[in-house]
Amino acid sequence: MKKLPAALVTLAAVVTASSVFAQAKPEEAAIKYRQAAFTVMAKHFGSLGAMANGKAPFDAKVAAADADVLAAVHGLPFTAFGPGTDKGANTKAKPQVWQKTADFNNDADKMRAEMPKLIAAARSGNFDQLKAAFDPTAKTCKSCHDSFKEK
Amino acid sequence: MKKLPAALVTLAAVVTASSVFAQAKPEEAAIKYRQAAFTVMAKHFGSLGAMANGKAPFDAKVAAADADVLAAVHGLPFTAFGPGTDKGANTKAKPQVWQKTADFNNDADKMRAEMPKLIAAARSGNFDQLKAAFDPTAKTCKSCHDSFKEK
Repeated sequence: MKKLPAALVTLAAVVTASSVFAQAKPEEAAIKYRQAAFTVMAKHFGSLGAMANGKAPFDAKVAAADADVLAAVHGLPFTAFGPGTDKGANTKAKPQVWQKTADFNNDADKMRAEMPKLIAAARSGNFDQLKAAFDPTAKTCKSCHDSFKEK
Repeated sequence: MKKLPAALVTLAAVVTASSVFAQAKPEEAAIKYRQAAFTVMAKHFGSLGAMANGKAPFDAKVAAADADVLAAVHGLPFTAFGPGTDKGANTKAKPQVWQKTADFNNDADKMRAEMPKLIAAARSGNFDQLKAAFDPTAKTCKSCHDSFKEK
């Protein structure tokens, strides 16, 4: 039997070990991926919110690190709401995501318009800037959740 | 009744709507967070691997975008293996993570030493660089999974 190249064997092992790729259905993997991206986003968004609202001490280094994560992940979930991903993996996405796609994309765009301002504020090292930028971004999260996410 | 500041009300609504923070136990939230970070990481690592191994066409833009996500998330899971996070939320982490912490951290360090090389290669726009850098990084994933992750 011909040996597979080592790189392929290693890749296969890693991919098998990664639960997101062990899913039989790509739609399930997509749902898990968008949920994962939202979970990472929520953690670092929540960290900024806690600082902005005085529930955690302001730490410029933490805020900048949160900003770096948010910059990389805030657009990711919206790549994974394709056809056939409306059911499964305990999704909390409402059917409206696929019924009112233009509205959903519009809400996502609003968040993507505000988030860079929050990211810049969180990188500035200036607490007042962070505080000022947090609420407008949080409102775009809430607005979209109200319309498109089950409680 | 005194009204709460609007920013706090909005934050509370967003935080409540985010499942990771709706968890009663912070340990459960930590497990979900590290799983989420690994899921995002696996997706973009897998994307690079598919290109490196000829299962997907090489696309320099996609590779660079994958690299940006990996740069932001590859260190995140290791912030969430604290005490009390060894059980719950269907964790696949073996008890050895907490029994042989030095070895676990050493394995994580090996990945963190290789990943920047893969990220640089993926940003280079050069397929041969990506191909060369993928396998050494994948080996660090596999090695740690073999020792510290249930199948």
